[in-house]
Amino acid sequence: MHIFTHRVQFYETDLMGIVHHSNYLRFCEEARVAWAHSTGLIDYQSPESAAQFAVLETHVKHRKPCHFGDIVKIDLQVRRLGIRLEFYYRLHTDRHAVVAEVTTVHVPLDRELKVTRLPAEMIAVLEKEKWIET
Amino acid sequence: MHIFTHRVQFYETDLMGIVHHSNYLRFCEEARVAWAHSTGLIDYQSPESAAQFAVLETHVKHRKPCHFGDIVKIDLQVRRLGIRLEFYYRLHTDRHAVVAEVTTVHVPLDRELKVTRLPAEMIAVLEKEKWIET
Amino acid sequence: MHIFTHRVQFYETDLMGIVHHSNYLRFCEEARVAWAHSTGLIDYQSPESAAQFAVLETHVKHRKPCHFGDIVKIDLQVRRLGIRLEFYYRLHTDRHAVVAEVTTVHVPLDRELKVTRLPAEMIAVLEKEKWIET
Amino acid sequence: MHIFTHRVQFYETDLMGIVHHSNYLRFCEEARVAWAHSTGLIDYQSPESAAQFAVLETHVKHRKPCHFGDIVKIDLQVRRLGIRLEFYYRLHTDRHAVVAEVTTVHVPLDRELKVTRLPAEMIAVLEKEKWIET
Repeated sequence: MHIFTHRVQFYETDLMGIVHHSNYLRFCEEARVAWAHSTGLIDYQSPESAAQFAVLETHVKHRKPCHFGDIVKIDLQVRRLGIRLEFYYRLHTDRHAVVAEVTTVHVPLDRELKVTRLPAEMIAVLEKEKWIET
Repeated sequence: MHIFTHRVQFYETDLMGIVHHSNYLRFCEEARVAWAHSTGLIDYQSPESAAQFAVLETHVKHRKPCHFGDIVKIDLQVRRLGIRLEFYYRLHTDRHAVVAEVTTVHVPLDRELKVTRLPAEMIAVLEKEKWIET
Repeated sequence: MHIFTHRVQFYETDLMGIVHHSNYLRFCEEARVAWAHSTGLIDYQSPESAAQFAVLETHVKHRKPCHFGDIVKIDLQVRRLGIRLEFYYRLHTDRHAVVAEVTTVHVPLDRELKVTRLPAEMIAVLEKEKWIET
Repeated sequence: MHIFTHRVQFYETDLMGIVHHSNYLRFCEEARVAWAHSTGLIDYQSPESAAQFAVLETHVKHRKPCHFGDIVKIDLQVRRLGIRLEFYYRLHTDRHAVVAEVTTVHVPLDRELKVTRLPAEMIAVLEKEKWIET
């Protein structure tokens, strides 16, 4: 389990006074990139390394709203599903034990942006990850 | 079936050179709002009417990327599921018969932003909508 | 003078119930790209052509707020300033004769993203543009 | 002088491979809100306090691009100009001493969103701020 935090910004709210739902995918991307960086899979100095994954699928279940100024904690876990990567995120705040649950599925791309195999380096990283059924 | 179009803007792309995945939920919101406006359920002059629905769930399956300048066509259909509304969207372009398939689920809120029943006016609108299984 | 329109979307509002100020630069980009497309300077099929300009400077004066559902009309004019391009935009709605005034300054880039001269093709286009002092 | 940092996210880039220019106003808002929070002028628990200022004017000069993963440092200073507040921000990274210079001007609003006087509490805060001519 990896834990990240995101402080909700004014520009992430909408006229309902809460975070616009499209931003949850951005918060999860922040957590995913931070995880990839922590494992050495992303090197910020060579952004093309970050571009080697396509988003195949996203699924968001909203339980409670987030508000301006909230500190959203994101618990992330990841597993290999064949040639795919599945991430699961639980978003929570001090007020709410579950703000949202999110799943995203990704697939590696080669330099021509065609689907390719998971690099051995990534498989090694994934084998060390723990997955807890949700 | 309702059809909307969205021209992909430069600011919707990311460093992979394609539309960032979080924007698909925004394109679908555009289609949903245009549908609600066309039925008379949203009055742009009283935005609080637009605020009476919460997003409960979103599900996006990406088939092909979209690029700057693409005209994305969004076919929308909607049905009632008890107290909920389910929208299904198929996004396509001249190049690709299916760019993405999206489902979003919504629930009406009262003035205190608590979950409430579907207003009779909306039920009447929904009963006229056709739903084709996908 | 070139005229474009942008319908304000729900996701462009913030918790003040009005359009977030950062979005005005996006509306102006839409107008600028549409202008460039109308002159033949941008070909949507080869997006790298759109990438040949850097934004050097932006200046926005806000007069009145925009709301969800508003149709924002953008009057655009453009002139050459040496190796630079200056755009001026006046944003207005049915309710307000001036919502905002925006100026943006751009400079052409070569394939290595270095500042370069204006291409002859663009100078020819600009010579046909009328500029009204504001 | 107040210093804030923003890590550039993937979703803030565009197809030129750099941060889209509209996001600079969002980075500055983050710095401005953090400053207001540090002085006690914003209480995240009552977001309406954050809504009491309108953006009158923004001015951005871009010197160098920012890239995915960059840590952008934002030096902020603020002064009172009559009934207005002026903020100046210098954005820099490890690579570039000046990425951008930004000025934003704001005016306080009352509960009906009409322009009003600066509250005494805010004037007291501003009198303690140092302003260095730029």
